[in-house]
Amino acid sequence: MLNLSRKAEQMPASPIRKLVPFADEAKKKGIKVYHLNIGQPDIESPKEAIKAVKDIEMKLIEYPHSAGIPSYRNKLAEYYRRIGIDITPDEIIVTNGGSEAISMAISIICNPEDEIIVLEPFYTNYSAFALQNDARFRPISCKIENGFALPPIEEFEKAITPKTKAILICNPGNPTGTVYTRKELEQLGEIIRKHNLFLIADEVYREFCYTEEPHFSCMYLKGVENNVILVDSVSKRYSLCGVRIGALVSRNKELMSAALRYSQARLCSPALGQIASEGALDAPEEYFKSVKDEYIKRRNILLEALNKMEGVFSPMPMGAFYTMARLPIDDGDRFAQWLLQEFNYEGQTVMVAPAAGFYATPGMGKDEVRLAYVLKEEDLRAAMKCLEIALRQYPGRK
Amino acid sequence: MLNLSRKAEQMPASPIRKLVPFADEAKKKGIKVYHLNIGQPDIESPKEAIKAVKDIEMKLIEYPHSAGIPSYRNKLAEYYRRIGIDITPDEIIVTNGGSEAISMAISIICNPEDEIIVLEPFYTNYSAFALQNDARFRPISCKIENGFALPPIEEFEKAITPKTKAILICNPGNPTGTVYTRKELEQLGEIIRKHNLFLIADEVYREFCYTEEPHFSCMYLKGVENNVILVDSVSKRYSLCGVRIGALVSRNKELMSAALRYSQARLCSPALGQIASEGALDAPEEYFKSVKDEYIKRRNILLEALNKMEGVFSPMPMGAFYTMARLPIDDGDRFAQWLLQEFNYEGQTVMVAPAAGFYATPGMGKDEVRLAYVLKEEDLRAAMKCLEIALRQYPGRK
Repeated sequence: MLNLSRKAEQMPASPIRKLVPFADEAKKKGIKVYHLNIGQPDIESPKEAIKAVKDIEMKLIEYPHSAGIPSYRNKLAEYYRRIGIDITPDEIIVTNGGSEAISMAISIICNPEDEIIVLEPFYTNYSAFALQNDARFRPISCKIENGFALPPIEEFEKAITPKTKAILICNPGNPTGTVYTRKELEQLGEIIRKHNLFLIADEVYREFCYTEEPHFSCMYLKGVENNVILVDSVSKRYSLCGVRIGALVSRNKELMSAALRYSQARLCSPALGQIASEGALDAPEEYFKSVKDEYIKRRNILLEALNKMEGVFSPMPMGAFYTMARLPIDDGDRFAQWLLQEFNYEGQTVMVAPAAGFYATPGMGKDEVRLAYVLKEEDLRAAMKCLEIALRQYPGRK
Repeated sequence: MLNLSRKAEQMPASPIRKLVPFADEAKKKGIKVYHLNIGQPDIESPKEAIKAVKDIEMKLIEYPHSAGIPSYRNKLAEYYRRIGIDITPDEIIVTNGGSEAISMAISIICNPEDEIIVLEPFYTNYSAFALQNDARFRPISCKIENGFALPPIEEFEKAITPKTKAILICNPGNPTGTVYTRKELEQLGEIIRKHNLFLIADEVYREFCYTEEPHFSCMYLKGVENNVILVDSVSKRYSLCGVRIGALVSRNKELMSAALRYSQARLCSPALGQIASEGALDAPEEYFKSVKDEYIKRRNILLEALNKMEGVFSPMPMGAFYTMARLPIDDGDRFAQWLLQEFNYEGQTVMVAPAAGFYATPGMGKDEVRLAYVLKEEDLRAAMKCLEIALRQYPGRK
């Protein structure tokens, strides 16, 4: 029979993508849509990255090494050492974006029905990677009231079963913008050491950390060197989303040996993206400084506007370029669709990401949305004006 | 426990890659190694592809559409229509090489332990994609004596079980270079129609077809439009192996809907590779003509030399740029390693791909190797001279 697999039947459509046709309709009607829904920064990629691509002299684009172009891995190892992560190029595999790194990590460590503890709300596509690999997510809920801080360690103890293989965190967090403290992460390290679990640490927003303390990487944790799997990506760091270059980094030799065999099966990561990413590593410090300053400015504009609106609460995000906001609404999905289908303020509207899709527990996050501050100041201000008016007019207002 | 998954433990290292350290050692000793082992062509990519990349004007490399850049998908659909495959852009998803297309297809159609019929010898990495997706391969053996022609239909009937979901073929074939006739493929179409199976057709070597009849695509088959899944790639067609751009093509709407959801989860295929691939579609007809002429010349040199060697048999391959050769040796793995470790002829040696890795049935292909004719004429002749001398000196000669 031409039936599809159960996985294929269950594979969710992205809750954000479901809104795209409505956004397209709105645009056709001449309405300007402010996209706060996705993490596609408008910040330019470093000139060094674009130049590296434009300067290629090859006449034939060959397969690079399955683990990544050696010169790129070497420079990447130097980058990690500069930020205090002492690793060798052999402890890095260049992947097709952070996406492949996570999916590969799950496949390498989980047998069917093995469990991974995740902190909800979490990046929606993690569920897809778990589903593809027959792993099960066991969510621990974080709360908007305390800025989605790490739940007490007892919550983890309660969630661990004989099937538990790993804890997966995103720090700084998408969708929350939360940055975990060193103390929280050391407690997490203690848990994974005690129960001998893997810790998959998605740190793709590392450079976007607005705390006074510098970002604390899980690769700094002592005594769990074999447990930590770092997931990385150039997509956000260098505004190079389209090149599809990430990395899987670990000091666990068996795991890296398996990752290399997985990587050989799919031959290699894209050569041109690796060339761009290698070029990006030459971007001067000022690049990050100006990008970070820009994001801090935008964050402050967004948060100030949000928290002034009646009935709205958004905790101050300390990293990444997202914030979660609780709105006085009945249902985020319905509200997001209404914004595109039925609302406009002076010919403008806003597209937001309904938060329910970031939770694994049904019913959670219904009155929350994620907002990405990836637009320039004046657009952000206009978007906030729209949102304020929309919340007053929305028929499902609570 | 920090144990890896069963899949990770079972994931095979590429039998060819295992030889790489020996090749590196040989090179360190100053020995010239002729690489007949991998399908990395030395033919230049079309100038149009390189130019498209060098001409990019973007300052920010954004996420392209999950299914592929619309202009690329449109041009790709035109390309298919030119070769008689009448499809729309919606019936194409641009993938991370042919590799992702195959892996995605297997995940979309197979539940754990579902079976896929493959013709052995087959492209080794197919096994890795089946393993990753918990599918089982059921091999039907093809024979070097008749040029690896399609086995009689009764063989398929015998291999089909209630668990069978698909037949997977590669046409023209890697590693065999075999091109199936229209009649053979129509018989295959009959089988999949009768048993309502999917047919995964890997046609990445389509342009390298040296038969008098033009290549017959499985997409031409009538009455099985919903069953056929075409796997494609620009890697070989345009010598663009490193860009990692392939395609999954099907008229089955449910399957394409699932493929789109899978594609959304990993966000997109690489933007720069898609730009190169779109540029490559502007390559003039002469590009293919000269490439094809070059491969035919090389094939003839290789085959003539091989079949003159005592005890060697290689059937004339009618497509791709590989041939399988039966050698008078005890064991292809041992021979390939010996060539690199212990042999040289005037400071030169040859690297070949042992064929056992292309068979699923243990013990098969032990005295066969795959040779890729991806080197220029004089190198090919020198490589054949080395092989001839090596076969005389090899201690495991039968």
